[in-house]
Amino acid sequence: MGNGVLNSFFYVVCAVLLHPGFLDSAQGRFISVNKPDPRNAAATARWLVAQNSWGVLNTISVDLGGAPFGNVVSFSDGQPNNGSGIPYFYLTTLDPTARNALKDERSSLTISEYPIGTCGKKDPENPSCAKITLTGKLKLIKADSEDAKFAQSALYAKHEEMKGWPKDHNFQFFKLEIEDIFLIDWFGGPKPLTVEQYMHPEKYQSAASN
Amino acid sequence: MGNGVLNSFFYVVCAVLLHPGFLDSAQGRFISVNKPDPRNAAATARWLVAQNSWGVLNTISVDLGGAPFGNVVSFSDGQPNNGSGIPYFYLTTLDPTARNALKDERSSLTISEYPIGTCGKKDPENPSCAKITLTGKLKLIKADSEDAKFAQSALYAKHEEMKGWPKDHNFQFFKLEIEDIFLIDWFGGPKPLTVEQYMHPEKYQSAASN
Repeated sequence: MGNGVLNSFFYVVCAVLLHPGFLDSAQGRFISVNKPDPRNAAATARWLVAQNSWGVLNTISVDLGGAPFGNVVSFSDGQPNNGSGIPYFYLTTLDPTARNALKDERSSLTISEYPIGTCGKKDPENPSCAKITLTGKLKLIKADSEDAKFAQSALYAKHEEMKGWPKDHNFQFFKLEIEDIFLIDWFGGPKPLTVEQYMHPEKYQSAASN
Repeated sequence: MGNGVLNSFFYVVCAVLLHPGFLDSAQGRFISVNKPDPRNAAATARWLVAQNSWGVLNTISVDLGGAPFGNVVSFSDGQPNNGSGIPYFYLTTLDPTARNALKDERSSLTISEYPIGTCGKKDPENPSCAKITLTGKLKLIKADSEDAKFAQSALYAKHEEMKGWPKDHNFQFFKLEIEDIFLIDWFGGPKPLTVEQYMHPEKYQSAASN
């Protein structure tokens, strides 16, 4: 093999290995759609929820006198390129979050753009590095229901490891019924965004097209 | 320049660009110390807090009827290689988290190992991908105090951008006074870890050296 061919080979290897898509997929992210224009609040919110695979799920602590208790969890809102906007979880009551939710459903899920890798050199608290908090009720999903089938399919698609989690831990599917959305994706404070707008982003794109 | 030299050059460029340290520093992480043995709970907890630069800070929402409200924030527990274990924040009451804390100090900070990049292919909810929740009181630090100077120095060292944040937003320093620690860094449930052990990890390393 000539040295020119060898050089080209290294160029290609470098290009593949350094491509953002490679780095992202290596950490289990699902980047296939570009980040929307930040003026498009509904699309940005849905992008954040669809592209990230984990967040912090907050409940009212039974063990700690009603303190707000955040817990790192995996979630999925659907198949990688077909998110529903509704976050589903696979939790066990061996962990306090599920126990808390069964006593008091009030909950929020907080997600950052930072670990997706699209914030560049911006600080995680910089308002143009997007963040979202979905507040609502954390509901246990009835086993063997249609919703449970959807949850399983959505979660297994993004968290293959879950298929093998121990049966005796009694993992159950939960979902967040969203009541309020707090989104910061640019300077100037939280974006006004209703649950209706979030659930139907295709209807609410006018701001970004101006 | 000969092709052999050129090939060596590409090897070196690839090696530098693909080195985990380069990727980590490119995303503002501070990896300089290896992850401790998971049997060493105090050291693992301190490593997680020192190596990560952001997390989710939870408060009781004034606006949302007492719901637990998580918010993505930057924090620092000290200089990059000299953490104190106590998380410091730079918050404005333009954001709900600071407003909530001024009404009700109960709070928690949740941090994942996942974005540090040391979980490999493990799921973010896999217990061997460490996570920690520090629960306590979120306290406003008195301006111009020694503690405020420490907070500023700690935060600016890890979040250089903060130096230029708008004066008229009235950012103030806060810290979390830790009362309870929830750490999962391996299979088998949360690790017993007291605040005393967390604050003095050098005294509590026996488990890992067995």
